[in-house]
Amino acid sequence: MMTNDVPYKTYLTESELPTAWYNLRADMKVKPAPLLNPATLQPVTAEELEHVFCSELVKQELDDTTPFIPIPDEVQKFYRMFRPSPLIRAYFLERALGTPARIYYKFEGNNTSGSHKLNSAVAQAYYAKAQGLKGVTTETGAGQWGTALSMACAFFGLDCQVFMVKCSYEQKPFRREVMRTYGADVTPSPSMKTKVGRAINEAHPGTTGSLGCAISEAVEAAVSQDGYRYVLGSVLAQVLLHQSIIGLEARTAFGKLGVKPDTIIGCAGGGSNLGGLIAPFMGEKLRGEADYRIIAVEPASCPSLTRGRYAYDFCDTGKVCPLQKMYTLGHDFIPSANHAGGLRYHGMSATLSELYAQGMMEARAVEQTSVFRAAEQFARVEGILPAPESSHAIRVAIDEALRCKAEGKAETILFGLTGTGYFDMVAYQKFNDGEMNDYIPTDEELAASFAKLPQA
Amino acid sequence: MMTNDVPYKTYLTESELPTAWYNLRADMKVKPAPLLNPATLQPVTAEELEHVFCSELVKQELDDTTPFIPIPDEVQKFYRMFRPSPLIRAYFLERALGTPARIYYKFEGNNTSGSHKLNSAVAQAYYAKAQGLKGVTTETGAGQWGTALSMACAFFGLDCQVFMVKCSYEQKPFRREVMRTYGADVTPSPSMKTKVGRAINEAHPGTTGSLGCAISEAVEAAVSQDGYRYVLGSVLAQVLLHQSIIGLEARTAFGKLGVKPDTIIGCAGGGSNLGGLIAPFMGEKLRGEADYRIIAVEPASCPSLTRGRYAYDFCDTGKVCPLQKMYTLGHDFIPSANHAGGLRYHGMSATLSELYAQGMMEARAVEQTSVFRAAEQFARVEGILPAPESSHAIRVAIDEALRCKAEGKAETILFGLTGTGYFDMVAYQKFNDGEMNDYIPTDEELAASFAKLPQA
Repeated sequence: MMTNDVPYKTYLTESELPTAWYNLRADMKVKPAPLLNPATLQPVTAEELEHVFCSELVKQELDDTTPFIPIPDEVQKFYRMFRPSPLIRAYFLERALGTPARIYYKFEGNNTSGSHKLNSAVAQAYYAKAQGLKGVTTETGAGQWGTALSMACAFFGLDCQVFMVKCSYEQKPFRREVMRTYGADVTPSPSMKTKVGRAINEAHPGTTGSLGCAISEAVEAAVSQDGYRYVLGSVLAQVLLHQSIIGLEARTAFGKLGVKPDTIIGCAGGGSNLGGLIAPFMGEKLRGEADYRIIAVEPASCPSLTRGRYAYDFCDTGKVCPLQKMYTLGHDFIPSANHAGGLRYHGMSATLSELYAQGMMEARAVEQTSVFRAAEQFARVEGILPAPESSHAIRVAIDEALRCKAEGKAETILFGLTGTGYFDMVAYQKFNDGEMNDYIPTDEELAASFAKLPQA
Repeated sequence: MMTNDVPYKTYLTESELPTAWYNLRADMKVKPAPLLNPATLQPVTAEELEHVFCSELVKQELDDTTPFIPIPDEVQKFYRMFRPSPLIRAYFLERALGTPARIYYKFEGNNTSGSHKLNSAVAQAYYAKAQGLKGVTTETGAGQWGTALSMACAFFGLDCQVFMVKCSYEQKPFRREVMRTYGADVTPSPSMKTKVGRAINEAHPGTTGSLGCAISEAVEAAVSQDGYRYVLGSVLAQVLLHQSIIGLEARTAFGKLGVKPDTIIGCAGGGSNLGGLIAPFMGEKLRGEADYRIIAVEPASCPSLTRGRYAYDFCDTGKVCPLQKMYTLGHDFIPSANHAGGLRYHGMSATLSELYAQGMMEARAVEQTSVFRAAEQFARVEGILPAPESSHAIRVAIDEALRCKAEGKAETILFGLTGTGYFDMVAYQKFNDGEMNDYIPTDEELAASFAKLPQA
């Protein structure tokens, strides 16, 4: 251990950086089910989507056959600000666990948005600018996506309107200030600025908001202003496409090291990080060129893959977005208020859902106190304070490394460390003070939520 | 511009990393004046210092002749967690300014402490552990040093007691929680735990503390507990020694690029960053091998180099530390409460003070609203939200680049970007809300402060 055969960190040179994104769907024999128009319940057309999304992004969303899509020059330049991200050998964690497993992580937190979200934000802002738009609207929960989009919009000179879930807006004033420093307009949601916001405020006075509700507000704001479109930080196929940069870089770095991972682990909320991290590896698996064990990790308090239904459902509370076939807990599902760890979306990327349905990957749900224990252990030996979201992957990576120890196996584990927890110290404080607890929804709660699925 | 002849970021490989620190004093013909024992006003002996500091660190503190001191293996391993730090070509800032200047910055913020402070924290914790100590005590103002030391102590299994200036403790609860996550014991200063703390609380009821006062408490806590020593994050020669890793890496990276900087700019509080960044370049200058323009940047509200006296003064309010000959504003000087930008120490590293007195470097004082304007401009084009401290260097780097533009000169500028501003959003919010203003101490205020200098 701690020998120099593999460096602690592996960076690609600029000439080794990917110049095209990889579209995982091109290698799927059974494709993800099409999006449906919420009014007609028929497959949505490009024309219909273009009222909401930028034209080039609509093309990417609907393209499930082209395997590689070139990354525009300006986006490649922006990527050089914060990419390549390092592939890190977790020597110190291995030593602390006493495991024969070789643990690697791809760290996406070395940028001001604090996470991988910037990979797609810069692409989406670029296409909006190229289309001559004035600005974009979006929602943000924990604030990582909103921050990333603010940074991208500041760079391209686009107006950026962010609807931030009200409880986050109030509990995370610093996230809000980062967005403001990048010139974004940040509104707590539900707001009185939109019809859907006013309706939700009226129906649920004093509500602290939800992601599904903020999405509805952002979509309405986009379609009701000239020169604006809506952009989304996860769930959609276009986002997974942009995030494939994570997996592409990781695979190239492993190639340089002459190493192949056995197990790949990522946290899963809407699926942007997991879908990006596994993309090229899953592609090899789909083409029968290699086998990898792939594990999606989700919170036990929001267990869409492990306990959800694979069905068409609305992507947002206000039912203004297209329907998507996905693993879902029901579009009204909101995780318990004591859930601090992010990953609180009710559904899951359609691509990942279909791959999970096909048995191409596993899923595991973990409870938040065990997630924060893993976060603390990791922080103390690896020197990075992880985001709660990322810590779901750390939890399972540690569990797998301990299994390897018990079985005496020197497996190679890769996990995605999506970001840092610097804006999540309220959750860490709860954990440090022993005031954090776990919550698992009951079968009855889920059944009530499933009853509202559109085709139920 | 934006061509590929110089990559956006240059990382050294592990085999190119420095294996020894550079001791700038070895190349100074006139050495910094010796530290004085506060009781006798005679040069302090190693034996006296060893009551307060670790033995190996005392040796480093007093050694002004050995040019290179090997970095212990365990420290080199820890460095690989977060080093090498990138040398970044600021292509986007150059483009935004329309300057022919070539701007580079050495970015030290990609670690959880958020700054360069970790470079010395790991060294000091290592020597404490090697000496068989139980723990260390320290003070922290903004919290970067305390966080860095907590990380280092968690790694080596040392107890870590941090006295945090009370106003920071209250205004920066998140910094406190990061330290607690790393297992540190954090006490607001002045506290009732020490004699000096109780005396200060009695003399100034309701005081929100100062760095000088927290230092006195930490020193008292160290000498009154078995198996404890005091460690300090700036000012001392040993700290500049450890921080030389910044400049050594930067010089090697420039060597790989075939580039030589004309001007080197760093912010200066106690001098740890500036001293580390310039060390090997200043060494060349002292040996007559090369010439560089070197600029120290300090806040106009705490202008020790530009308006201070070069004299012996106490390093702390409680007068328990050795006296040091340095540029000082007087040991009772506390910057105006509206000063948000860090760098609030009343004195300056003795080494840097002597070099400044010898005319080997320039100094410039800048006002905080202009510093935050530079920070915002930089954040928007370079994608990194800088620490207020670091933004002092950004301000002058931009000013110099604009001078190059006016003069049509393609000079090469290097500045130190010491850290990120993620825990400084209260100050950014003030700036975003237009509520930040400037403060410059009057000549009368400084004269009153100088009157208390020990030899005045």
